[in-house]
Amino acid sequence: LVESWSFLDTVESNFRPLVVIELAKGTKEETIEWFTKRIVDKKANGGAQLLIKPLVTENGVENIYLVGASHLRLLLGAETVGLVKECNDNSMRTFTYSSRKTFKDFADDNHNFLTMAECQYIIKHELENLRAKNEKMIPGYPQAKLYPGKSIVRRLLTSGILVQIFPLHDREELKKLRHSWYGRVKVGYQPLDDIRCYFGETIALYFGFLEYFTFALIPMAVIGIPYYVFAWEDYDKYVMFATFNLLWSTVILEVWKRICAILTYRWGTLLMKRQFEEPRPGFHGVLGINPVTGREEPVYSSIKRQLRIYLVSLPFVCLCLYFSLYVMMIYFDLEQWALDYHKENESNFSSLMLYVPSIIYAVVIEIMNRIYRYAAEFLTSWENHRLESSYQNHLILKVLVFNFLNCFASLFYIAFVLFDMKLLRQSLATLLITSQILNQFAESLLPYWLQKRYNRRMKKRMCSQKTDMDLSLADQVNMEKEMGTYLGTFDDYLELFLQFGYVSLFSCVYPLAAVFAVLNNITEIYSDALKMCRVYKRPFAEPTANIGVWQLAFETMSVISVVTNCILIGMSPQVDALFPDSKMDLVLTVALVEHLLLAIKFIMAFVIPDKPRDIQMKLARLEFESLEALKQQVRAFQMQLHFLLIHR
Amino acid sequence: LVESWSFLDTVESNFRPLVVIELAKGTKEETIEWFTKRIVDKKANGGAQLLIKPLVTENGVENIYLVGASHLRLLLGAETVGLVKECNDNSMRTFTYSSRKTFKDFADDNHNFLTMAECQYIIKHELENLRAKNEKMIPGYPQAKLYPGKSIVRRLLTSGILVQIFPLHDREELKKLRHSWYGRVKVGYQPLDDIRCYFGETIALYFGFLEYFTFALIPMAVIGIPYYVFAWEDYDKYVMFATFNLLWSTVILEVWKRICAILTYRWGTLLMKRQFEEPRPGFHGVLGINPVTGREEPVYSSIKRQLRIYLVSLPFVCLCLYFSLYVMMIYFDLEQWALDYHKENESNFSSLMLYVPSIIYAVVIEIMNRIYRYAAEFLTSWENHRLESSYQNHLILKVLVFNFLNCFASLFYIAFVLFDMKLLRQSLATLLITSQILNQFAESLLPYWLQKRYNRRMKKRMCSQKTDMDLSLADQVNMEKEMGTYLGTFDDYLELFLQFGYVSLFSCVYPLAAVFAVLNNITEIYSDALKMCRVYKRPFAEPTANIGVWQLAFETMSVISVVTNCILIGMSPQVDALFPDSKMDLVLTVALVEHLLLAIKFIMAFVIPDKPRDIQMKLARLEFESLEALKQQVRAFQMQLHFLLIHR
Repeated sequence: LVESWSFLDTVESNFRPLVVIELAKGTKEETIEWFTKRIVDKKANGGAQLLIKPLVTENGVENIYLVGASHLRLLLGAETVGLVKECNDNSMRTFTYSSRKTFKDFADDNHNFLTMAECQYIIKHELENLRAKNEKMIPGYPQAKLYPGKSIVRRLLTSGILVQIFPLHDREELKKLRHSWYGRVKVGYQPLDDIRCYFGETIALYFGFLEYFTFALIPMAVIGIPYYVFAWEDYDKYVMFATFNLLWSTVILEVWKRICAILTYRWGTLLMKRQFEEPRPGFHGVLGINPVTGREEPVYSSIKRQLRIYLVSLPFVCLCLYFSLYVMMIYFDLEQWALDYHKENESNFSSLMLYVPSIIYAVVIEIMNRIYRYAAEFLTSWENHRLESSYQNHLILKVLVFNFLNCFASLFYIAFVLFDMKLLRQSLATLLITSQILNQFAESLLPYWLQKRYNRRMKKRMCSQKTDMDLSLADQVNMEKEMGTYLGTFDDYLELFLQFGYVSLFSCVYPLAAVFAVLNNITEIYSDALKMCRVYKRPFAEPTANIGVWQLAFETMSVISVVTNCILIGMSPQVDALFPDSKMDLVLTVALVEHLLLAIKFIMAFVIPDKPRDIQMKLARLEFESLEALKQQVRAFQMQLHFLLIHR
Repeated sequence: LVESWSFLDTVESNFRPLVVIELAKGTKEETIEWFTKRIVDKKANGGAQLLIKPLVTENGVENIYLVGASHLRLLLGAETVGLVKECNDNSMRTFTYSSRKTFKDFADDNHNFLTMAECQYIIKHELENLRAKNEKMIPGYPQAKLYPGKSIVRRLLTSGILVQIFPLHDREELKKLRHSWYGRVKVGYQPLDDIRCYFGETIALYFGFLEYFTFALIPMAVIGIPYYVFAWEDYDKYVMFATFNLLWSTVILEVWKRICAILTYRWGTLLMKRQFEEPRPGFHGVLGINPVTGREEPVYSSIKRQLRIYLVSLPFVCLCLYFSLYVMMIYFDLEQWALDYHKENESNFSSLMLYVPSIIYAVVIEIMNRIYRYAAEFLTSWENHRLESSYQNHLILKVLVFNFLNCFASLFYIAFVLFDMKLLRQSLATLLITSQILNQFAESLLPYWLQKRYNRRMKKRMCSQKTDMDLSLADQVNMEKEMGTYLGTFDDYLELFLQFGYVSLFSCVYPLAAVFAVLNNITEIYSDALKMCRVYKRPFAEPTANIGVWQLAFETMSVISVVTNCILIGMSPQVDALFPDSKMDLVLTVALVEHLLLAIKFIMAFVIPDKPRDIQMKLARLEFESLEALKQQVRAFQMQLHFLLIHR
């Protein structure tokens, strides 16, 4: 194995491990040999032309390999994945090796031109694009079929030979990042650019959104405080607050698009061309010809998928929603029953019984959420989406709708069926605060504590007195491979989404919600940062240009909140008193105001440009340049032709 | 003049006149010489490298010039403007001269590879891109300033030296087109591809939309007829009809996007890259550097423009809207007064007086519309938009809002203030039918008749007994230059937009509207076709990929119609009778239904893909190919590098 280095190795000899590949215990020797051969093989032979080294620990060679690449190879890979970097003239351009000298900070010996996260992303991309040539199966595993063009790594993963691939932490960098991120108590922005360098754009964008959203909530919180302090309950003040809230939530969502454009322009992902998406690992079908690529790959009829979505998934989701509503009704019955029981008996036991329904309901909701999440994942995977992105979108949609109902159905019921504003305020406060505390605990602090305990034990077992920094590479790899895997930003965004719901849906009933949200988000930044840096394996960087489907989800929530707030205001006794003669006039006025607010919302969303003017200009400039380059080409060709015609 | 032909002329000698340039009478000789020299000059010298010939009539040389180009020049121009044509393998690709052999129907001697409309578009593009080099002014006209890079033709137009540029009709092609389009009475589709070949994509797309819209209205018309015939007034039937209408209008607008994608894919404009837009002729500012192009051109601060829009134009439009409402109120007062007068006197005179308010109102509306149109054009031009497209969008928005109010305000007033459903039905019918008849007359038949009379007189004056076909080129040019100029599809779309309003806004009150709309549109197709072929100068073809802002306008109208129809149904006595106890329940139910319908609309718009699957596939294939080509390039480069590294 050791002698089969890539030729590029002769040019550069310092091997920097970037990515860890863990093969299953007992993987056959021939498989390992074939796989590593393919990884180091030249591009011309269909290899990935990377460097690979087995990890040698005290116990001898385990099935763990370190992958790296020469500097030149990484630069060429950067061109393949289409990285966008800053040029000397401060414009952002797609990196090409031939134009490398025009890029800022580029020097042939500057190995920091590409960040470590970028290097790891390139290696991941190259590994995933390592394709079968004429192999019909993975050597040694006849059941793991291959066909020309099939991604080898994906097949190895689905057949269980490859346990995991993950990028290594850079302990020094991580320490610096931790220090500037949450290491000291300070007022100020997060080091988003550093986060992006270390964890990639998707995660940096989440933290950027979290921070932005927290700042955006501050005006709402500030305006909300006097309502609580002075117990303002005047009609006009509530209307003012709600109107401000509704318009403000539109503005912040529009402004986020602009800020997102600024961030992703600076990071280069706004300009990055979308790569052609491969079928996701779980996708199956009969082998056919992909009409787009002309390559052999599994093909699955889109009509069949549509049928599965509309005839199975959709009814199932509706059924679950119905069931969740049914459970809610039982809860309210129980609540009523407990109240009656308490009124009759008035004992200590009966007052304790008052809490029982809430506790049962909370537990049941949690169980339902979990079961539903599995069901949603199973169903979406059964729908057999070809692309990971479309799989994710369908899954997010399913989970979102159910979570929305589970969280807010009881509040809706209290507000619009029971008409009990006091209970609504109380439930809202309880739900908001408990969910925030539970979330932070379950999501970050508990895993952090577990991880810490595990690390301590590991170190003890290794019988070393070394500090974190002195850990050998082998120890580091062994420790990191046992860490949990960060499953993406889904749960973090979901939490923010539900929080946004608590703040905006019933904002005119409970103005203090924004205050709690702000407080929660400040600690959330720290606990999420802790989670990223200390609890989980380093995730691969994922270039992304926006927060995707979440933008739509937040916008939808803000539309729904217009409706709910208008109804709430219409139902308040103060407004009622304004229309003593006719309830009709009241309802019509409320409907009119609601439609006006919705119209204003849509007009505002339409009028505020999604990208700031200077970003628009820069994009236009790039487009213009590529058009000019094309024209120049045409002109050069015309000249040539001209010359030929004259001299024939 | 005659000896200064372009060198390309020596290659091909048959001059086919494509575009006519009319200079002002008495234009100085030096100006003409300079201008024609620039047109025929080689590209390398900054010329347009076209062919130009003065038109010689019986009266000697007038200031009219015919512009043509060699076949080769046109092919190179097709590459410059980025035309997309069909390849031999039925895919659509951007035409390049070097890959010309791969295109369908291409042969070096096939001069029909480019349609005449395409050739004329190329020539227009080349003329407009003829730019000043070091000239500080137009020779002979010191007041007509130039700066390097300024489009010469635009300066000539704005300074009045150039009267007009227009493409020539092809009498033979036109005759064929007329025959297949409206020459014979037939049931079937319009020859959209032929229309596109002759008039270009913008106009073909308008006729495509008109035809599609007519077909789409047929189901509504068919369902509407029994309501009229059997005088159905049942609640459930009306609700059925209105619901069908609302969902149907969403579906047809979504499906149109798909059909539009199919059409423009076939025509190549869906794939055509947007050219970099030049400043529009009326744009002025201090000479500066355009940040996008880096070229010298007038620069105007975008903040100033925003201030003009929001501080002047917006208040002005609001004022006009208010004024229009004020006039409407006067009309209703007059109407009331006439009615009272008639009741008191009961004479012939008084019954005649009943019609006076309507007539006055109709005339006043027409006058207001015209004055407003001028004001809107003046204001939009004063806003000083840099791009023609942004000028057009702002103008369309202004005119649309005002026309919408003028047309529908009285109907809204009758429906939601007077609550007079009978009067509403009557007014709707009157407005719809009279506006349709007047429009068709004023727009096509009258100009046609005038044009015909003029042509007859022209021919008589020329004292020739020749038929249309034998007209000399000079006669043809002289006749065409006097024809009216087609000012774009704006008025045609506006008419359809208002018609859509009549059909959908109050559909549950007057189900027969769709029937009239269908009948009108069938004749509209013919009269518009007549207008295009016989009344106006041939317009330049304009490549376009969709109907632009009109899609948004129609969608907005369909959202508004959900609201109006729900209210109308809620107000009907039949529905009233369903809620005998509580008007509240009625209003709440209506509001609930309205929100549900709106939600369904948005979900439908979201779920129905904008492009059919096969077009999506074809686009994905092109994108994939360009990515692969890039990778191939990278790979080739890597091989080269590899080689160099080994052999150094």
